[in-house]
Amino acid sequence: MSETDPLVIFTPSGKRGRVPAGTPVLAAARSLGVDLDSVCGGRGICSRCQVSPGTGAFPRHGITVTQDALSPWNAVEERYREKRGLAAGRRLGCQARIEADVVIDVPPESQVHRQVVRKRAEARAITLDPATRLQLVEVAEPDMHEPSGDFERLAAALAAQWGVEGLVAGPAVLAALQGALRKGGWSVTCAVHSAGAAPELTAVWPGYFAGPVYGLAIDLGSTTIAAHLCDLHSGEVRASAGLMNPQIRFGEDLMSRVSYAMMNAGGAAEMTRAVRTALGTLTAEIAAEAEIDPALILEAVLVCNPVMHHLALGIDPAELGQAPFALAVSGALNLAASEIGLPLAPAAPLYVLPCIAGHVGADAAAVALSEAPDRSDELMLVVDVGTNAEILLGNRSRVLACSSPTGPAFEGAQISSGQRAAPGAIERVEIDPATKEPRFRVIGCDLWSDEPGFAEATAGTGITGICGSGIIEAIAEMRMAGLVDAGGLIGSAEQAGTARLLPEGRTHAYLLHDGSASGGPRITVTQSDVRAIQLAKSALYAGARLLMDQMGVERVERVVLAGAFGAHISPRHAMVLGMIPDCPLDKVTSAGNAAGTGARIALHNVAARREVEALVRRIVKVETAVEPRFQEHFVAANAIPHATDAFPSLAAAVTLPAPSFNAARGGAEGGRRRRRG
Amino acid sequence: MSETDPLVIFTPSGKRGRVPAGTPVLAAARSLGVDLDSVCGGRGICSRCQVSPGTGAFPRHGITVTQDALSPWNAVEERYREKRGLAAGRRLGCQARIEADVVIDVPPESQVHRQVVRKRAEARAITLDPATRLQLVEVAEPDMHEPSGDFERLAAALAAQWGVEGLVAGPAVLAALQGALRKGGWSVTCAVHSAGAAPELTAVWPGYFAGPVYGLAIDLGSTTIAAHLCDLHSGEVRASAGLMNPQIRFGEDLMSRVSYAMMNAGGAAEMTRAVRTALGTLTAEIAAEAEIDPALILEAVLVCNPVMHHLALGIDPAELGQAPFALAVSGALNLAASEIGLPLAPAAPLYVLPCIAGHVGADAAAVALSEAPDRSDELMLVVDVGTNAEILLGNRSRVLACSSPTGPAFEGAQISSGQRAAPGAIERVEIDPATKEPRFRVIGCDLWSDEPGFAEATAGTGITGICGSGIIEAIAEMRMAGLVDAGGLIGSAEQAGTARLLPEGRTHAYLLHDGSASGGPRITVTQSDVRAIQLAKSALYAGARLLMDQMGVERVERVVLAGAFGAHISPRHAMVLGMIPDCPLDKVTSAGNAAGTGARIALHNVAARREVEALVRRIVKVETAVEPRFQEHFVAANAIPHATDAFPSLAAAVTLPAPSFNAARGGAEGGRRRRRG
Repeated sequence: MSETDPLVIFTPSGKRGRVPAGTPVLAAARSLGVDLDSVCGGRGICSRCQVSPGTGAFPRHGITVTQDALSPWNAVEERYREKRGLAAGRRLGCQARIEADVVIDVPPESQVHRQVVRKRAEARAITLDPATRLQLVEVAEPDMHEPSGDFERLAAALAAQWGVEGLVAGPAVLAALQGALRKGGWSVTCAVHSAGAAPELTAVWPGYFAGPVYGLAIDLGSTTIAAHLCDLHSGEVRASAGLMNPQIRFGEDLMSRVSYAMMNAGGAAEMTRAVRTALGTLTAEIAAEAEIDPALILEAVLVCNPVMHHLALGIDPAELGQAPFALAVSGALNLAASEIGLPLAPAAPLYVLPCIAGHVGADAAAVALSEAPDRSDELMLVVDVGTNAEILLGNRSRVLACSSPTGPAFEGAQISSGQRAAPGAIERVEIDPATKEPRFRVIGCDLWSDEPGFAEATAGTGITGICGSGIIEAIAEMRMAGLVDAGGLIGSAEQAGTARLLPEGRTHAYLLHDGSASGGPRITVTQSDVRAIQLAKSALYAGARLLMDQMGVERVERVVLAGAFGAHISPRHAMVLGMIPDCPLDKVTSAGNAAGTGARIALHNVAARREVEALVRRIVKVETAVEPRFQEHFVAANAIPHATDAFPSLAAAVTLPAPSFNAARGGAEGGRRRRRG
Repeated sequence: MSETDPLVIFTPSGKRGRVPAGTPVLAAARSLGVDLDSVCGGRGICSRCQVSPGTGAFPRHGITVTQDALSPWNAVEERYREKRGLAAGRRLGCQARIEADVVIDVPPESQVHRQVVRKRAEARAITLDPATRLQLVEVAEPDMHEPSGDFERLAAALAAQWGVEGLVAGPAVLAALQGALRKGGWSVTCAVHSAGAAPELTAVWPGYFAGPVYGLAIDLGSTTIAAHLCDLHSGEVRASAGLMNPQIRFGEDLMSRVSYAMMNAGGAAEMTRAVRTALGTLTAEIAAEAEIDPALILEAVLVCNPVMHHLALGIDPAELGQAPFALAVSGALNLAASEIGLPLAPAAPLYVLPCIAGHVGADAAAVALSEAPDRSDELMLVVDVGTNAEILLGNRSRVLACSSPTGPAFEGAQISSGQRAAPGAIERVEIDPATKEPRFRVIGCDLWSDEPGFAEATAGTGITGICGSGIIEAIAEMRMAGLVDAGGLIGSAEQAGTARLLPEGRTHAYLLHDGSASGGPRITVTQSDVRAIQLAKSALYAGARLLMDQMGVERVERVVLAGAFGAHISPRHAMVLGMIPDCPLDKVTSAGNAAGTGARIALHNVAARREVEALVRRIVKVETAVEPRFQEHFVAANAIPHATDAFPSLAAAVTLPAPSFNAARGGAEGGRRRRRG
């Protein structure tokens, strides 16, 4: 390249260089390392390499771009524009040739490594860096005098035309190869997966195939199996689906499933079959919902807790039920999706994220990848609340992790009127501190129960029970309204001054809703409900506290509530209960299904897989089950909240009533009723 | 290491060096790169590292070895000798320490890379260089404060104790890992397979497991499926088994099976299922015969022709039925044995040898590996006779290959009294040139038919038909006895002077055996039998001749007959027929099942896999189906033998009778009757 060659400057990358006059823009981009997409390899078919050339003076770059800096439209480009359309100002990078100095903008949709913006403002964008790429190749026809396999000639073509070296393929895709090559007239589009030891051919189509092709990000939870069907090119979620984990019949929580495996010969294998069948059903459902052929799902990423991890892989989880909670395998796994029976494309690979520890699984690793405490300047507490709570604490310098056995109360189980979060379930509760009268909202209706039209709007579903976030709010509101004392004791009608407190044996219950007149249930919060939530929240708090001890801090700067439950929980109510350590309320945010998001990140970004593998090795694991301080924190965290001085941020926002109905047990807490803010 | 350190010299390798006094012999061997086996890694358990120290003066090495050159017997060694015995003069290399200058002999059974001597004198030995090694490791126990998977700690132990880096494992073996580790008290024997991209854990046993472990070498033929069960440590064949290929019901020969696949929807899949089921049956049978658990079969090697290759892999073979005979894949394949349904150890790998061309398969590659024409100074013709004949011609400088469509006549099919080689089949024939009376031998009996006791000895099986080698000998003998002329015409009783020539329509047949008196068959050689063999032998000869043309030679220096049929064929009779080109008769040898042997070599020697892959790329492929000269040679080779002057070696050994019953067609050949030599 001489100084008289045209200068080309690509934006937004700023990459620049001189190329011989007549060089196609796509070739120039490749030689300069500019991220410009292409599936057809420069044949003017796929239009993925669209660019926007600039004209006029570019003082910052020190050049002026003339109208003829790029070659005139050629026949291929004209035909493309006629048949498929091209936006004004756009050119096909593979057809337009550089004739003079030029500035060329690569729009986001023409970049392979573009970013997918997430809805939450504080979340980092997903940078696309796909393991699976579609590549059109022209394959040499067989020559019986120089015999070689069709696959070998395909591999040679991919090496020559795309720089893919050392391609491998399994029988499933080899079986489809010959038909595709002949149908496509020796031109095929290949799906090449480059995340393992060698690039692998995972699918092949005759001629040019534009996609879309898909990946499946699976979050296999103890209770729910959720999956996102994602477009591997755009990064968009095309469909999401969820299914109850059929293993629930073997035990509600993980440890009862481990017990089932230990107590029943073949029990683990039975649970493996159940979960694999469910994964197959879910795949079929999500493909049906998106109206796509499941054979277009070319890869999958799986995250799950350690017990589900082992069961999905066909490994007996017995060791996870007892100290030292040894995982059979902790590292990330690259498998064939068919090895766990996933009915995707026959040769689709499956990536399983690494586990952090025996109680802190690949789901927690996915949360760490999504919420990135290791990239945070603030000291960040990430809590993924489910039947087990996984807790991460850290910042750029250090990340700790533990798991805490909260039990299923937060999911509405073991609660007298509890139910899963579904239409008809009470999810929000307010209790007037003066009148002690409640109002509430149910899932599936935007009105509060005291607003006009509520009865009509909920007539369809009825009011069927109370879900996890509802019980949290109900008990926190009861505490704020003086119906429950700091010890968790529900007062009598006389003590608290409301007829909604009903005697129930030797304790009392608060009547939240009486639907009995119309044949519906009476929904109450009982003393044992409060006790169940106290146990759960104490476990959660104690886990967080243990990590804070380990980190040597008394406060955290940010709290992220992850998980479906975390998405619906009210930070203020959580803090009134003492579920989470004190933190400014505006620094408590919900991350939604962060484990699922982590799975999506790993699906779309192959570098993120290396990143999470390295992060998991760096995370310091803390085992709550054998840590005496965990027990101490757990016992000390029983009160609601357990100690006012531990919650300065909360104290600034909320004033709590007298700590005890029993004056002799009264503490230092003030007795003034707070007003709604 | 200083000049005062003891000098150790290992024989037979001659490797020598100084090691600090007190170094165990095994450690010294490892540091000097001496091939000394060990499974237990120096724990005095496996005794694989037995050595024989020398004493006295070794003038060639310039040292004198004293009685105390090695440390005295220690407790471990003593206990081993008491419990298991040690041959006189033997020490355990891991226990005996080098104290002074010493010469140490490593006996063959203590070498990993020792040679397995083959029965045939001219065959090269199989050098053991196994892909699968057993290695005992002590694994760190899990620590819940530093959690890591059992597999990760196992991998670390294998790296530290055996230098195995980057171990991988699939779900099947991971499922067995935790139980083995705990049962073995954190000591396990691992089977590590190192032939693919990364070393793979393929099996694990609690504590020390001495083996034996096995590999399966499979030769999947069109007609017969044969397998050898081999001890991976000793290289010995522990059992061999064969099974009819159940695909025969879809077509006797390969092309009729390809047609079946093309004409019937799902036909290819049906044949795939049939052959995979048969492979499973064969595996079960061979394991039962050897009285071993099939889960101890840790790897397999498969060789087969291209059509069987594709069908076994689940690839439609349609393209192999028409020019240009394109293979879907020609390179070697590293799969999981489970991918083609082989019921071995759950994680057992499968190596499939490369194919040479669309008609010259992995079986021919295996023959090339076994017979090694590429290492021969003589110009060597290797013929593997089956339904298709694969032909190799070459020497150190160049190897050519082709396939010739001989049809099934050589296997006894399409022959009037033909049958497969089984007890009761006539396999050897002699016809007295004076009396024209035959005598013969049948499979399962060592006597000739004119020897006393023959009738009694064959009473069990009867005399049921004539197999491939029998029909070759019969027709060659008929030619030599003047019963058939050079054109292949069977003479009349009058022409040839024997009542054994019976009219059959407008032609004649030779009565070889009449069992009708005792209810058995009449076994004749008919005119159409002669025509079938003429077609088959012409095809075979034409293929060989085509390669000779290509090589630019008129003669070959050595002929190797491979295959089960080749093992039984008489070189002299083959040459009388004109099946093979002229060659000194003592240079025509049988290699037995060379394809199976090639599979065994690849099974036992991982370097041989690279070797055959490289060889296959170098072999020059010649496609007979479209080569006009093949047709010319085929037509010209019809006579028996087709031209006397083409067989100078034969002419020196055999004198043939008049070429024609029709005097007008008489040629230059002499009329003198030869005498038996």
